[in-house]
Amino acid sequence: MADLWVRFRHGEATGFGLLDGERIHVHAGDMFEAPRSTGEVVSLADARLLAPVVPGAFIGLWNNFFEAAAKQGNAIPTEPLWFLKSPRSFAGPGDPIRPPSGYTGRVLYEGELGLVIGRSCKDLDEAEAQGAIFGITCVNDVTALDLLIADPSFPQWARAKGCDGFGPIGPAIATGLDWSSLRVKTALNGRVRQDYPLSDMILPPARIVSLISREMTLHAGDVIACGTSLGALPMRPGMLVEVSIKGIGVLANPYG
Amino acid sequence: MADLWVRFRHGEATGFGLLDGERIHVHAGDMFEAPRSTGEVVSLADARLLAPVVPGAFIGLWNNFFEAAAKQGNAIPTEPLWFLKSPRSFAGPGDPIRPPSGYTGRVLYEGELGLVIGRSCKDLDEAEAQGAIFGITCVNDVTALDLLIADPSFPQWARAKGCDGFGPIGPAIATGLDWSSLRVKTALNGRVRQDYPLSDMILPPARIVSLISREMTLHAGDVIACGTSLGALPMRPGMLVEVSIKGIGVLANPYG
Repeated sequence: MADLWVRFRHGEATGFGLLDGERIHVHAGDMFEAPRSTGEVVSLADARLLAPVVPGAFIGLWNNFFEAAAKQGNAIPTEPLWFLKSPRSFAGPGDPIRPPSGYTGRVLYEGELGLVIGRSCKDLDEAEAQGAIFGITCVNDVTALDLLIADPSFPQWARAKGCDGFGPIGPAIATGLDWSSLRVKTALNGRVRQDYPLSDMILPPARIVSLISREMTLHAGDVIACGTSLGALPMRPGMLVEVSIKGIGVLANPYG
Repeated sequence: MADLWVRFRHGEATGFGLLDGERIHVHAGDMFEAPRSTGEVVSLADARLLAPVVPGAFIGLWNNFFEAAAKQGNAIPTEPLWFLKSPRSFAGPGDPIRPPSGYTGRVLYEGELGLVIGRSCKDLDEAEAQGAIFGITCVNDVTALDLLIADPSFPQWARAKGCDGFGPIGPAIATGLDWSSLRVKTALNGRVRQDYPLSDMILPPARIVSLISREMTLHAGDVIACGTSLGALPMRPGMLVEVSIKGIGVLANPYG
């Protein structure tokens, strides 16, 4: 049985704890290092869930699913092809996703598996990397597609994916959950538009973490979005986008 | 006369203050908001300078100098073409620049003007953006060139420029200094390899900040490296690379 870690706002206070049905068992200390129960219980109905982590580094992968690579004619990578999402892009469950001022182009959702790093680490092999993954969550890797492709000489990954609020995370971080048999589903106004198996991933989580850690020290709370598969589509104002993974929950955000 | 803000380590303590010749006038509070003098003075000789700021977001521009664009055959951009350097890439004066383990390709220095943001801001016009720039510094935007171009389908800007220690900043942040008549010089083992005027910049600082702020909230301490011009070259182990701008100082880092 997986544990589900959440962060929340309750009245004026911000806290974190373990989600158990409709109740949050509040914890104190460091989520990643021996957090301790305070004994306090908050009703989920009285709390507003926040992004379950504030990522120090927020990494996203491109081209990491076989089915999408085949359909789009992309070569199969042997190393993670990644970009950084800006530290201003992360958002929580329920937070509205809004296009930047003056931008009238397409804004795509991309439902993805997110890895949450649990400790500072560098130069890990795959077994070590597996142990450095604290848990998994849902990520909506929102993309302003017309910014990405606006300049043919320079694909603008950081800009297109780094706008304020373009990285909803949550609703919880599941620990002890095996990703390999899970699916990522994304629904737009209740209609399922993405439903792909994580077993179709080209580079699995431990390999991603191992290879990135060769060049960049990872810290507890860093989030790596593992890339998306087919079915990423533009959103229209007023739509609700829901990214869900069984055992983690539903990450729902309105657009516009 | 410009003020020069530095961060330093002195014994076990870390502090910041105003550099005055060989002395640091120690300050307390927030560097960006009404810092106050403690009256304490530390000798520069007894201190080790750190990166003058820990950037929350660390942005770099590509293709922002006319001379380089002309020589490399790049079109003149009307908007900043930017990437994010990882939060693990910043480094201070004197910190060694080391290639990641297992990487044996080319590692380039790139001497650049760095803008340090002074307050949280969004959707600024150019006049407002000018006021949001706290000061300027030197940046060495180090690049693992063979990682950048390793995959023809995906230029790996974040990876190639985000390795640990690939973004030395400093030695000081100069406030009240007019950038427009200054030059960026980069010397490799004492031999000047870059010496270009900032007046050759395509998008000037206030326009860069204004345009980026339309999509991404900027915070105090964010650093924007304005791009480099001609003369960026690979370093070899044992070399010393020095980026200097008159009025700011010399940012010296050994390679390897």
